[in-house]
Amino acid sequence: MASPNPVIAEVTRGGIVESRHTGAFVVVDKDGRLVASAGDIDRAIFPRSAIKAFQCLPVIESGAADRFGFTEEDIALACSSHNGEASHVRVAGGMLAKAGMTEAQYECGAHWPYELSTQHDMLRRDEEPRAIHNNCSGKHAGMLALARHLNAPTEGYTRIDHPVQRAVAKVMSEFCDITVDAQPHGIDGCSVPTWAVPLRNLALGFARFGSATGLGEARDAACRRIVAAVRAHPFMVAGSNRFCTRLMEEVPRAFVKTGAEGVFCGAVPHAGLGLALKCDDGAHRASETAMAALMASLPVWNEAERRALASFAATDLSNWRKVHVGDVHAAIGGAS
Amino acid sequence: MASPNPVIAEVTRGGIVESRHTGAFVVVDKDGRLVASAGDIDRAIFPRSAIKAFQCLPVIESGAADRFGFTEEDIALACSSHNGEASHVRVAGGMLAKAGMTEAQYECGAHWPYELSTQHDMLRRDEEPRAIHNNCSGKHAGMLALARHLNAPTEGYTRIDHPVQRAVAKVMSEFCDITVDAQPHGIDGCSVPTWAVPLRNLALGFARFGSATGLGEARDAACRRIVAAVRAHPFMVAGSNRFCTRLMEEVPRAFVKTGAEGVFCGAVPHAGLGLALKCDDGAHRASETAMAALMASLPVWNEAERRALASFAATDLSNWRKVHVGDVHAAIGGAS
Repeated sequence: MASPNPVIAEVTRGGIVESRHTGAFVVVDKDGRLVASAGDIDRAIFPRSAIKAFQCLPVIESGAADRFGFTEEDIALACSSHNGEASHVRVAGGMLAKAGMTEAQYECGAHWPYELSTQHDMLRRDEEPRAIHNNCSGKHAGMLALARHLNAPTEGYTRIDHPVQRAVAKVMSEFCDITVDAQPHGIDGCSVPTWAVPLRNLALGFARFGSATGLGEARDAACRRIVAAVRAHPFMVAGSNRFCTRLMEEVPRAFVKTGAEGVFCGAVPHAGLGLALKCDDGAHRASETAMAALMASLPVWNEAERRALASFAATDLSNWRKVHVGDVHAAIGGAS
Repeated sequence: MASPNPVIAEVTRGGIVESRHTGAFVVVDKDGRLVASAGDIDRAIFPRSAIKAFQCLPVIESGAADRFGFTEEDIALACSSHNGEASHVRVAGGMLAKAGMTEAQYECGAHWPYELSTQHDMLRRDEEPRAIHNNCSGKHAGMLALARHLNAPTEGYTRIDHPVQRAVAKVMSEFCDITVDAQPHGIDGCSVPTWAVPLRNLALGFARFGSATGLGEARDAACRRIVAAVRAHPFMVAGSNRFCTRLMEEVPRAFVKTGAEGVFCGAVPHAGLGLALKCDDGAHRASETAMAALMASLPVWNEAERRALASFAATDLSNWRKVHVGDVHAAIGGAS
């Protein structure tokens, strides 16, 4: 990098800074005008799971969601990185059934539910994790439904040249004002492609998605339907004790989504703003607290919302005996 | 920080850098002469568990280890951040019994064994984690033995003013050429104090400890006894698939120890060198790969050792379906 990114979060112990995280972030309006930024916002980063709402859009726009009778809960789960809790697995299973699919068709791979008591209960019952417990199983149920709706083979729906991923590439390119096929791409944790997009373009995509005006009547409606589904079911988007869920439960006018390796994106639909943030080292403790502080800094909230957002900008740290040892707090005063 | 620390490790995906870690590191000889360094090596950092060998030293020097018949395995476990595997728990239990102590006297708190199959087996048997599964239970068994040997109360042995912690403070001050009581201190994960020490001083401490010459006959012998115990039982120091264990199994002439929040320290006893490294953001994937690359860069190894060390400087990353997606690799070419 030309000039190093600024510190966006600090970890303290015994009253001094023990660790620190650098990163970049940007806020733009739906016309791409810069509202706030820090660091290198033109470097292309992998958005990972932060763009699940965009990956869900073709499921709505194609008519697949209506054809298979997907509910608001289903749509919220399609936009999620969920905890694998009972309700997440139930909704994912329902989506598969409605689309005439089975768990065997999942190409996301299996992992233990993120939520520890769910994981521990499964172990106590001697169960093994399946693909439906994968945090991306809602997104993949949507992709399988889309493949079927497009009369495309369901096998290989995660491949970059499959019609499902072509549809996602088109959406990303249109919203973010960039040809993603000309960008570097990698393979995500759940085996779908992830395209590198500059933070500034990601924020633009979220501003447009959240504003949902001027994209054409059908697309405007599809974006609004997804935002409404996520807001109505924030638990579906992540789960117990998860940052995205807790933040949207407390501040329903916010629209946020985490991504692996320290990515956080979001929108403030009522103000027409889009946000994108990447912690250089990939740490969630930094991307979460910094995203909350960044949102709180925007002059678009009422006082209760601002306070709620600010409360997510710092987290106390305790040790194994529950003794307070320090904290993680955002440090993004340098926003310009 | 005045001038930002350099990148010490990178994480790639799809052929580009997805995340990066900065940090500082230093190598000195036992007289404190600088052999290699990068970044701010005069900033005080919390060494955390990296200095467990120093915390063990008073257990040897006081005569407690001999009085209670501690074996080489016991001493290695006292210097460990172990996985909580069956052998670790067995050895910790033996140490407690020899010192006339019980698990109830532990002040380290309980957590699940780090090693997943051990943790899962416990869950399948409906067991709960105890303090003896805490990665620090060997160190704490040593501290309890020392408290008893000193005729000090065992209750409160983790407090900064307890004779056990006073003995540790004295050792750290003497080896690192710094008055730790004049330094900031915090509470560690296992509730003992951790004092902030500049990286340069930590490396000096490790150079002296590893060299074990000129510290007085008794201290030289105690240091050699600890280094020999760790080398003879690298599994006790960490466990299955752990970096410290694997590295010392492959390169027995190395002496290394990880610490929380991205710390790594070590010594090359045969060359009289000490090393200290801190990843700014606290990531282990960076501190581990960078430490291996730093060690490999030193002209003190035979070719087999150098190759083995270099093999630890990069790790492939695969996703949930075992598809290769990228890697983590050290990037410390900038050593000066």
